[in-house]
Amino acid sequence: MTFLHLRDELRESTPLVQCLTNSVAMPLSANTLLAAGASPAMIDTPEESADFAAAASGVLINVGTPTSERYAAMREAVRGATAAGTPWVIDPVGAGALPHRTDFVRSLLDARPTALRGNASEISALGGGGSGGRGVDSADTVEQARPAARALVERTGAVVAVSGPEDLIISAGRETWLSSGDPLLTLVSGSGCSLGALCAAYLGLGVDKHDAVLAAHAHAGAAAQIAARSATGPGGFAAAWLDALHHITSAEIADLITWKDHS
Amino acid sequence: MTFLHLRDELRESTPLVQCLTNSVAMPLSANTLLAAGASPAMIDTPEESADFAAAASGVLINVGTPTSERYAAMREAVRGATAAGTPWVIDPVGAGALPHRTDFVRSLLDARPTALRGNASEISALGGGGSGGRGVDSADTVEQARPAARALVERTGAVVAVSGPEDLIISAGRETWLSSGDPLLTLVSGSGCSLGALCAAYLGLGVDKHDAVLAAHAHAGAAAQIAARSATGPGGFAAAWLDALHHITSAEIADLITWKDHS
Amino acid sequence: MTFLHLRDELRESTPLVQCLTNSVAMPLSANTLLAAGASPAMIDTPEESADFAAAASGVLINVGTPTSERYAAMREAVRGATAAGTPWVIDPVGAGALPHRTDFVRSLLDARPTALRGNASEISALGGGGSGGRGVDSADTVEQARPAARALVERTGAVVAVSGPEDLIISAGRETWLSSGDPLLTLVSGSGCSLGALCAAYLGLGVDKHDAVLAAHAHAGAAAQIAARSATGPGGFAAAWLDALHHITSAEIADLITWKDHS
Repeated sequence: MTFLHLRDELRESTPLVQCLTNSVAMPLSANTLLAAGASPAMIDTPEESADFAAAASGVLINVGTPTSERYAAMREAVRGATAAGTPWVIDPVGAGALPHRTDFVRSLLDARPTALRGNASEISALGGGGSGGRGVDSADTVEQARPAARALVERTGAVVAVSGPEDLIISAGRETWLSSGDPLLTLVSGSGCSLGALCAAYLGLGVDKHDAVLAAHAHAGAAAQIAARSATGPGGFAAAWLDALHHITSAEIADLITWKDHS
Repeated sequence: MTFLHLRDELRESTPLVQCLTNSVAMPLSANTLLAAGASPAMIDTPEESADFAAAASGVLINVGTPTSERYAAMREAVRGATAAGTPWVIDPVGAGALPHRTDFVRSLLDARPTALRGNASEISALGGGGSGGRGVDSADTVEQARPAARALVERTGAVVAVSGPEDLIISAGRETWLSSGDPLLTLVSGSGCSLGALCAAYLGLGVDKHDAVLAAHAHAGAAAQIAARSATGPGGFAAAWLDALHHITSAEIADLITWKDHS
Repeated sequence: MTFLHLRDELRESTPLVQCLTNSVAMPLSANTLLAAGASPAMIDTPEESADFAAAASGVLINVGTPTSERYAAMREAVRGATAAGTPWVIDPVGAGALPHRTDFVRSLLDARPTALRGNASEISALGGGGSGGRGVDSADTVEQARPAARALVERTGAVVAVSGPEDLIISAGRETWLSSGDPLLTLVSGSGCSLGALCAAYLGLGVDKHDAVLAAHAHAGAAAQIAARSATGPGGFAAAWLDALHHITSAEIADLITWKDHS
């Protein structure tokens, strides 16, 4: 249970998370970080991103709805984070289905991100193999993306998380399958992107990076299970998810999730 | 009752809807599509929009909060949609009140959109006549916009929908007045834009285009009536609307709306 | 009680508020204005902003997530507002912590905004002094920002509002401390930005500018107190806040807030 106490640590240390993310997911991502106990800062301009990344606890790079200025800002943020040792996460929204941004993500992988979080099609496209997604949805299973995830771990040194009905989190020498969450999450636009932001928050604690990414997934997934108890549809669920992200304790997370660790 | 079964068809076939839309309405539009049963993809870059539009089931072009890159992307999306025969919808937010974007919308009309959805002032400004809107609100009644809507049908071949207390949907040889909805919808920012996205989703089913646009309005309007039963204000209403968009059946829509068809 | 009746006046006159604001806060800001009884228009392009600002009741300039086009649009909006005598508000998100936008805000101060609303660190950075913020959060107390706020009043002629656990509103010859609100507001991303938009709405009534800014803060704060009664977390609170912004009356605001006026 090495990672479960991190939920309390997040609340106490309030990591500052810089998000360069898509316009659809911005409000939910900021609210997710606030609810969980982190401090969001949506700093995504070329002029400001490098310096800010150097000072932030963690950085999220999400390539949805990119603009030429935000692409430039993402490069700056990676430069600033790398120079300062700030952990940073890539969320490769639409990789595989969209060649232009796929090339961009590939170029960022060379800079060795701390973590990479995506769906099975995105991870497959980046790691080799896969049938390609349909828009931003996955057309592959998490299990199918496992070899690609493993290849990405070897190539980049990152923790690679494949989100799905069960989440797979892989790093050098360790592999975890996590069972948590609720299908209603897939009806909330930006919930996956918000999970990417939460990964950056947990990485901002400066703990083991596999534990950090796992803790983020467990936090988001267990909160979804609580929210699903009272929700009558996707609109009420989104609000209830934020409420649960805020109130949930380490003990509740431990009760709600199951996971299997292989090393 | 030719159009009512389309609600079930939408849920079963999950059309992929590309949205190039304004930053205010992005989250709600994506959530509306997810709740209704469609798959949203907010692909709005110049490099990616044409190819994606060729593969999508339907495309929404909404001109709110435009940038020079998004204008270029909209042109690309129209080009890709036209070449591939993908149905596409224009939502001319602010047309009439804002000359720059009005010129842009006029230029897109020459490309013969599948559908055009706006408020009475926007349709009047584009079709000739009207007193001009106040910002993005309408200063005209739906009835006043009828001649302009008719003129736009003749000029472009599109289905033209004028949203208001009663909605008017006109196409060549057919005119429908629809009574549904709730005034609380006007207090939810982006609800009209989300209706435009829903029109693109229904058009993505490949059915009669008048029926598709009518079905989208009926779905959104009837869901609003259900949401209004429990809502105590605009914030709770927005969440309840998404819940109702998700759960509502064809039979419930049939019970809640009234319409008159003229051909 | 000079300002309390303004809540009813807002509902009756529906001021048209142009918002040039960040992508995170856009949906909530628009919904806040709609709930309160104003009419939002998110017109933020260089081509359209000046003319629109001349016709609007009030203008908000918020420098979060700026782009080069939106910077240009902000300058245009200020030019149009100034020429036409439209009141305008600056919300200097991140000033102090982010040098690039701080310079931009300073240049706008020369154009003499009607009001300036920020947190203690932002106001301190602009007015001289302060320890600097952490991202977009404040690291200073409202009391610490008082001399800087006073200096900004003298330099620009604006009403300066410092938001915090207690709000301080200063103008030439008048100073008001307002006690209202609820800590849950700090967990809703964009709530401060939405308060800036509400200031522009109240200023659009054409009343005394100190009263207008005070009324906006009292409206937002008292609505938060109502929302907190029923909310079980930040997600439900956000929806309940919009509901309360919509329904709250002048009399309820008077019951919920306390304030001290010095002149």
